Amino acid sequence: MEPFSFILLELAVIIAMAALGRGLALRFNQASVLGELLIGVLLGNIAYWFGNPLATVVMHASDAQSLVDEVWLTGVSINDAAEKIFTSQELANGVPHELVNILSGPHTPELLLMITTLWLFSNLGVIMLLFMVGLDNSVAEMVKVGSRSVAVSIIGVIAPFAIGFLVSDWLLPDASTPTKLFISATLCATSVGLTARVLEDLNRNKSKEARVILGAAVIDDILGLIILAIVIGIVSSGTVHMGEVARIVLLASAFVIVVLMFGENSVGWLVMQFYKFFNKMQVRLLFPLALAFLMAAFANYIGLAAIVGAFAAGLIVSDNHFGGDKSPSTQELIRPIQSLFAPVFFVLMGMQVNLETFLELETIWLAAAFTVAAILGKLFSGLPAGKGIDRLSVGIGMIPRGEVGLIFASIGKGLGVVNDSVFTAVVIMVIVTTLVTPVMLKWSLEANSKS
Amino acid sequence: MEPFSFILLELAVIIAMAALGRGLALRFNQASVLGELLIGVLLGNIAYWFGNPLATVVMHASDAQSLVDEVWLTGVSINDAAEKIFTSQELANGVPHELVNILSGPHTPELLLMITTLWLFSNLGVIMLLFMVGLDNSVAEMVKVGSRSVAVSIIGVIAPFAIGFLVSDWLLPDASTPTKLFISATLCATSVGLTARVLEDLNRNKSKEARVILGAAVIDDILGLIILAIVIGIVSSGTVHMGEVARIVLLASAFVIVVLMFGENSVGWLVMQFYKFFNKMQVRLLFPLALAFLMAAFANYIGLAAIVGAFAAGLIVSDNHFGGDKSPSTQELIRPIQSLFAPVFFVLMGMQVNLETFLELETIWLAAAFTVAAILGKLFSGLPAGKGIDRLSVGIGMIPRGEVGLIFASIGKGLGVVNDSVFTAVVIMVIVTTLVTPVMLKWSLEANSKS
Repeated sequence: MEPFSFILLELAVIIAMAALGRGLALRFNQASVLGELLIGVLLGNIAYWFGNPLATVVMHASDAQSLVDEVWLTGVSINDAAEKIFTSQELANGVPHELVNILSGPHTPELLLMITTLWLFSNLGVIMLLFMVGLDNSVAEMVKVGSRSVAVSIIGVIAPFAIGFLVSDWLLPDASTPTKLFISATLCATSVGLTARVLEDLNRNKSKEARVILGAAVIDDILGLIILAIVIGIVSSGTVHMGEVARIVLLASAFVIVVLMFGENSVGWLVMQFYKFFNKMQVRLLFPLALAFLMAAFANYIGLAAIVGAFAAGLIVSDNHFGGDKSPSTQELIRPIQSLFAPVFFVLMGMQVNLETFLELETIWLAAAFTVAAILGKLFSGLPAGKGIDRLSVGIGMIPRGEVGLIFASIGKGLGVVNDSVFTAVVIMVIVTTLVTPVMLKWSLEANSKS
Repeated sequence: MEPFSFILLELAVIIAMAALGRGLALRFNQASVLGELLIGVLLGNIAYWFGNPLATVVMHASDAQSLVDEVWLTGVSINDAAEKIFTSQELANGVPHELVNILSGPHTPELLLMITTLWLFSNLGVIMLLFMVGLDNSVAEMVKVGSRSVAVSIIGVIAPFAIGFLVSDWLLPDASTPTKLFISATLCATSVGLTARVLEDLNRNKSKEARVILGAAVIDDILGLIILAIVIGIVSSGTVHMGEVARIVLLASAFVIVVLMFGENSVGWLVMQFYKFFNKMQVRLLFPLALAFLMAAFANYIGLAAIVGAFAAGLIVSDNHFGGDKSPSTQELIRPIQSLFAPVFFVLMGMQVNLETFLELETIWLAAAFTVAAILGKLFSGLPAGKGIDRLSVGIGMIPRGEVGLIFASIGKGLGVVNDSVFTAVVIMVIVTTLVTPVMLKWSLEANSKS
């Protein structure tokens, strides 16, 4: 079989597994993300236990990456590279020993292609997810969000961040400040897609509570990305330096303000120029795609996370630019591409959850503490929802972390500030917050309507 | 910038360039493939002349690939790998010297990721192209194709193959038989998308000629893939061995027959099971995608080309399986994915055309001879179109090679039977046959309607 056929097989398996997980989740009225994630955990850990090379490399992705980079950057053989990075003890019979064995087998070229494919699709999945979030929002809508939603969203970011920092400082006293900040940032995320579905199921999607929650979610996306930008800046510079924080806040704000002020009109003007020249399909699909990729790369170039650029690109592209022609809409054209890439991200995230870390008491403690911090923090966010509103339900509606929390965790893992144990705990937190929301929300809404 | 951002930038540039090329081609009423291909030739050669590392590796993809594979398969350093594969003279100041320099620079990891992305997207583009061709056809339609179309298609495969073999035997006496067979196979391909558009422009798309051409195109796709399967089998076994040819013909026929007989019903049954369990979007998009990837990998596993499997998957998936629900259709869902991957294939094909090879007289001769063989061969195919039909126009309509010819050439390059000079000549043949068709067809149809 050609190397490319291994990739086809791999993609077919991942897509089928993701569809299975999603189907199961929806059947039990859970978020589809949850199904994809859990299938990934199952698939990854079983394959890992059986010594599958691909699962092993995925589970120890950062070690494998350092090894491969060392080979290419210094032009040495794989054994020499391993001796440079790892201790002789690790090389005798630790994970590095396994990795060196796997990466010098007869199928290493295919294996590296398969890993690279997963990494690429997963990263593109994240970009497409945030691009879609941006597309679903618009600058005009953001301006219209009520002050109650803004208050809910601000408290919903500050409270979990503060509680998260205290908890990680208490449980991980030896961890670096960047690690603690990253954990806290991950706890701020909100993904209200699930809440919206539960409200719809209960026929409460036109209620005051629903309006406040959905409005808060719009502001939350922006606040979360700004916090992420600041934390990434701190991680890159290594220390918490107020000048650096100020620089990033200014940079991120400048980026967002320039994009929000001039973005929509520039895109409208560009599209008009392109319409003179190109045919419809290209302008509708290839233009938004190229814009998203370009703005994501640019955001990363100026020191922000790539997803900030993808989100901003989504914000400023609107169907109105295309002469009000809504069929097919930009979302309809982008969704199939997102549906191909995003499941790879979720399954891969699951595959990186090492269930072995549960043998360590620390992981269980961390997972429990993060989960409590995540739930408590968002419950506080219901307080400023105002009178005449079911504040508890608003708070509960903000709880699910979903894909945004996972994206933050994966960025932290990529930057090396989140170790295996913390990563597992964060994923568990995402799973639990997403699991409990429907149950809690139903209970709270029903209790409130009775009283 | 993170490594992934380089990939985002690369994809944005390739997508924008492809859109530009396509826009220009359509403006001059040419096939969109042509624009993407020529932009690739331009972009690739300019970047290559300026010593761009990415363009250099793309231009010498197979040498670079052997080098990278050697490093991983034997666990040696890049310099040792280079000494194993290349002569000391080549390493002193040939292309291998350049490649070793590029692949031991400080940006090698990013470069390899960028190359792998192009390779992956391009290969997926080919799979999606053939899957779409399959989707556009159906088993039922194929059975209905008239005997005239079948005759046109058979002559349209035999004549160019025979002329192609004679020409390559004459111009490349030292080439191996597999190389000559591969060139001949590439000359058989037809891509009538362009012809269909020209006929539509001239308001002749309901004419007898149009019906014969479009019918012949359906059979042509199948015949071309069978020939490809046979030639790949011969290339793999190294010699022309009648037993081997018979084995492949049987295998390919068995695959096609099994798929055509049982495929549609099996897919229908499977989809029904899935509908009980999954939601619509997944069944509509993820099921066909996973099926295409799986069948492509399977086809390659049993020794056929992966594209045969992708084409077969497209044939047996039909919108009727989804309860007659046609909105969005499978094509509409798959097209955005194809629109992302396929342009990368065409641009990359163009980037691999080394204009330096034109300094050698051989390439010019080959390009001219292949083009004449390609045009003559297909003109013969008009002969059996029967009385009362404009045979010349039918023959001309079959001339364009388009994407199918390019896909064949890329497979040959991948297998190592098509060298740089032959590859360039084949791409020129594809470009010229695609360029001349609209002009010739208009002239011939107008001349015929006057007489």
